[in-house]
Amino acid sequence: MAKITKVSPLAPAQFPDLPVIDGVKFATAAAGVKYQGRTDVMLAVADAGSTIAGVFTRSATRSAPVLDCQDKISGPTPNGVAILVNSGNSNAFTGARGRESVAAITGAVADITGLDGAAVFTSSTGVIGEPLPHDRIIAVLGQLNGDLDAGKIGDAARAIMTTDTYPKGAMAQVETDQGPIKIAGIAKGSGMIAPDMATMLVYIFTDAKIAQPELQALVSEINDASFNCITVDSDTSTSDTLLMVATGASGVSVDRAHQGFKSALRDVFMDLAHQVVRDGEGATKFVEIQITGAATDTDAKTHAMAIANSPLVKTAIAGQDPNWGRVVMAIGKSGAAADRDLLTIRFGDITVAENGWVSPSYSEDQGAAYMQNEHLIIGVDLGLGQGTSTVWTCDLTHDYIAINADYRS
Amino acid sequence: MAKITKVSPLAPAQFPDLPVIDGVKFATAAAGVKYQGRTDVMLAVADAGSTIAGVFTRSATRSAPVLDCQDKISGPTPNGVAILVNSGNSNAFTGARGRESVAAITGAVADITGLDGAAVFTSSTGVIGEPLPHDRIIAVLGQLNGDLDAGKIGDAARAIMTTDTYPKGAMAQVETDQGPIKIAGIAKGSGMIAPDMATMLVYIFTDAKIAQPELQALVSEINDASFNCITVDSDTSTSDTLLMVATGASGVSVDRAHQGFKSALRDVFMDLAHQVVRDGEGATKFVEIQITGAATDTDAKTHAMAIANSPLVKTAIAGQDPNWGRVVMAIGKSGAAADRDLLTIRFGDITVAENGWVSPSYSEDQGAAYMQNEHLIIGVDLGLGQGTSTVWTCDLTHDYIAINADYRS
Repeated sequence: MAKITKVSPLAPAQFPDLPVIDGVKFATAAAGVKYQGRTDVMLAVADAGSTIAGVFTRSATRSAPVLDCQDKISGPTPNGVAILVNSGNSNAFTGARGRESVAAITGAVADITGLDGAAVFTSSTGVIGEPLPHDRIIAVLGQLNGDLDAGKIGDAARAIMTTDTYPKGAMAQVETDQGPIKIAGIAKGSGMIAPDMATMLVYIFTDAKIAQPELQALVSEINDASFNCITVDSDTSTSDTLLMVATGASGVSVDRAHQGFKSALRDVFMDLAHQVVRDGEGATKFVEIQITGAATDTDAKTHAMAIANSPLVKTAIAGQDPNWGRVVMAIGKSGAAADRDLLTIRFGDITVAENGWVSPSYSEDQGAAYMQNEHLIIGVDLGLGQGTSTVWTCDLTHDYIAINADYRS
Repeated sequence: MAKITKVSPLAPAQFPDLPVIDGVKFATAAAGVKYQGRTDVMLAVADAGSTIAGVFTRSATRSAPVLDCQDKISGPTPNGVAILVNSGNSNAFTGARGRESVAAITGAVADITGLDGAAVFTSSTGVIGEPLPHDRIIAVLGQLNGDLDAGKIGDAARAIMTTDTYPKGAMAQVETDQGPIKIAGIAKGSGMIAPDMATMLVYIFTDAKIAQPELQALVSEINDASFNCITVDSDTSTSDTLLMVATGASGVSVDRAHQGFKSALRDVFMDLAHQVVRDGEGATKFVEIQITGAATDTDAKTHAMAIANSPLVKTAIAGQDPNWGRVVMAIGKSGAAADRDLLTIRFGDITVAENGWVSPSYSEDQGAAYMQNEHLIIGVDLGLGQGTSTVWTCDLTHDYIAINADYRS
């Protein structure tokens, strides 16, 4: 196995000092799901009155824990909620046995926390197609329940890491006329060293008081513009999960229309989504694709993802090559509406191509100098309408191949 | 520039001994389009009575020569046809200047061959966004016209190479009750060393006599099952072109219903398409994806391409890792209908997964041994219906990155 142990060059300088979110506590343990002596289980328990919302992978082959979460997510949780996450095994493509493992774990968590099974949500990340040794997880639940602590969210961020090169956290505070609200979130993804570990898991907590349907609407909307706008390699996990819990402990009531809360929540989602891209396998560049002037927003996203997922664009970026011809190629192949002679392409503030040809003011030296930057912006205006989209990706490097090909499972 | 000079390990043992196709002649020259002293122009001229059909890239940003070919392809060609191909410059994304270059070249070829401009077809492959120096091409037309020779198709195959690691040719002969028909074809693609050279160009010639609409119908149908079923990296050139000329010199008349001709033509298309995959950038494995049991043929192709284009599947193949979990992932993300618990996955004759879980008879050792093969077959039965699709691809290796990222243009 070619283990890439260095931290991503795009990592933030440090893990943020996440605030305590009143009404939710965390604990972690080493259950030995796949490896001995490695912290691989996280439990979060939120107080009575908490609401929970979530979004999940759209994969047609999604895992047993994802299917279980989706069944429960919109139900009532008057007594609070629990989230149990394990790494080392994704419990995906495990047939009826997979469902039994989820039922065993959620039942045991319910017993020990006093919650209903319908209020217990689980995520699993790791190898596909192997039975989850759920007894090992159940064996540490007593320890986890005893260790629950409001200050342990940073430990939780580290516990859900699998092959990430750094833990991911983000926070925000909102002042309202009823008082302050706090938000803290953690995520894992997408440093993949062992096979089948590309899953993205995200858990966000707030002490705001918000009804479940309102929270779900906000989570779905903000997710569409953040986690649904990032791509490392176009591949989609069978286990992607985002759960958000609102404890209400601040006593501040909000709804989907509360602009201060929504804006802060968007910042936390976006920060975590960008951190996932910055930990993309082998990444050396953080790339923002800005599409404007498309016929529709849907077309804009199609163009943006075609550029972001193009191996030829991504390798050119890795090579620091201002290869705008490959951007033209990606737009052409996307399937969305484009008129060659109306395209404008920009690298940062540099207009590279316009009116169907290279810009008269553009020089390769200018483009080459720009491509040295670690954070790149590729802008494309289609000249057709008002559709816009922004997505984020990383480059495609030798380390991506080393991480994903140079091993034997 | 990290120039990969070794011939693909998947190359055929030798270039085939292509037969003379009566009624068409070839010539090649070094015009200095981009580099001096390199053969970079090919001219083919077919006699009066020839018909021509073609298929082209679906890119929305297709090149000036492609647009010109599409305008002309279904018109009458009573006096014969000419095809002029240059490498070194794709004349793509070159605005009005691009159209002027095509007009200048087709006009000059018409003058020197005595054909109508409407019977002259051109292809250009090479760098995007630079004006084509068409005067250099026009300057060698006299020499090309003088050198035309029925035996030079092998030279033509070499002249259209850009970054291919070997020339690509294929042939077939069909016995009919009217006498024999011969077919010979050449192709270039997709060894990409310099930027923007990924274009696939294909020229096929036969001495059969066939009306243009019949030929077009055959070419379109067979193309759908051959060149439209291969992928190296999911990226689509702005210049992909396939032209087929039927000279009629054999005196044998056929139509789209002639099973012998159709079958032979399919063999030639398929042979050339596979040769393009075998020259995929950095390829070390030739991979066939066989989908059965999908809800529809369209769904089957969507699943097949999702697997064939998945970076995680392709890197696993490069690593000789029997990572069937990544195949499950690719099916799940494709967007086409799938039921996790009805999937069957096979590596060659080995049943790897079935009924929503790993097959009881499967062992990792079996899978790992199979992945050592150079030619791999990944079979997936969806268990949903009668839809089928077969596509061909290659693996994703360090050399792909070296070829596409490790240079400065």
